[in-house]
Amino acid sequence: MTAPHKPASTSAPIHHIISHRWSPRAFDSRPVEPEKLRSLLEAARWAASAYNAQPWSFIVATKDDPENFQRVLECFVEFNQSWARHAPVVALTAAFLKFPHNGQPNRYAFHDVGQAAANLALQAAEFGLQIHQMAGIDPEKARKTFGVPPDYEVVSGIALGYPGDPAALPDQLRERELAARERKPLAAFVYAGQWGNPSPLVKP
Amino acid sequence: MTAPHKPASTSAPIHHIISHRWSPRAFDSRPVEPEKLRSLLEAARWAASAYNAQPWSFIVATKDDPENFQRVLECFVEFNQSWARHAPVVALTAAFLKFPHNGQPNRYAFHDVGQAAANLALQAAEFGLQIHQMAGIDPEKARKTFGVPPDYEVVSGIALGYPGDPAALPDQLRERELAARERKPLAAFVYAGQWGNPSPLVKP
Repeated sequence: MTAPHKPASTSAPIHHIISHRWSPRAFDSRPVEPEKLRSLLEAARWAASAYNAQPWSFIVATKDDPENFQRVLECFVEFNQSWARHAPVVALTAAFLKFPHNGQPNRYAFHDVGQAAANLALQAAEFGLQIHQMAGIDPEKARKTFGVPPDYEVVSGIALGYPGDPAALPDQLRERELAARERKPLAAFVYAGQWGNPSPLVKP
Repeated sequence: MTAPHKPASTSAPIHHIISHRWSPRAFDSRPVEPEKLRSLLEAARWAASAYNAQPWSFIVATKDDPENFQRVLECFVEFNQSWARHAPVVALTAAFLKFPHNGQPNRYAFHDVGQAAANLALQAAEFGLQIHQMAGIDPEKARKTFGVPPDYEVVSGIALGYPGDPAALPDQLRERELAARERKPLAAFVYAGQWGNPSPLVKP
């Protein structure tokens, strides 16, 4: 068995890096080339953000730095550690919660960290890499471990690498790894004129 | 003068749809093909989200529906209305603030709306379209205008179309439209081992 190929089942044509992005839990042990990692972070860098505040930060560790890899890994919840430990790269994202230009709260801090993460994920897909973003982390443990300052919040965990053989996963995770990807239909979330009224653009 | 071409000045190679995405204020009056709009929304649909909750919604209006176009436009602050009124498409994004599977608050609601918006923006760039996302909106006016339910929050505004001639903009906006795009260097936000310590991956 090799890594699954899971292109999205789309109702309209989309770019292949968007349709081929998915979130594996089985990763190949093959290291990620440092120049590719740099391109992933560069892609994140060019995301849009409110007032160009660029509220995103990344704490990154590769397996060839086992001590820091372990320190990032231990900020994930145990379930996520169980599979993410096999990825060659792990990371945490963080958000600066204020606007640098006036010190006021940035309502878009998490939103724009999300935009940067999406860019990173798509650049990964372009290289045949994939990332798995995790809500299951311990943000305060990460704050203590890495000295994250007040006014910043640790947002998410990331496991990153070349997708691997799902045979290495426990039974239940292997099933999820091989299952088709699912999304709500467009008409469930694209509206016109009134909330809940499907836009004519997306009527089936 | 024609629409500016503003590829990012990158420190590592990134996919052209990521480097060529930018946020114009001058839009061409040319309508956007409905099938392309559908592809943009389909790209948003396939974004990643925590627990696959897909917390994003979009309220979309095209200029051939002038009444609804105006209703969306009037949810933007006046400054944004002044230039966005010339775009052929305007939209609002909204976030569902709870997880559907358990009704608990979704810490990633805004984050994942951001991921969907980033996908939409990149699919737009693939077609030679661009979007300009706006923090400058009146979310509560949008809630009243469109009947956005409790547990949802209106997040951002979007103007969308083919980039246009900056000559149509007032002087100050024209300067910003033509200025080079800027970002913090990678070493300012990619860390290893400790907050603020640049990762060896991104050292210049």
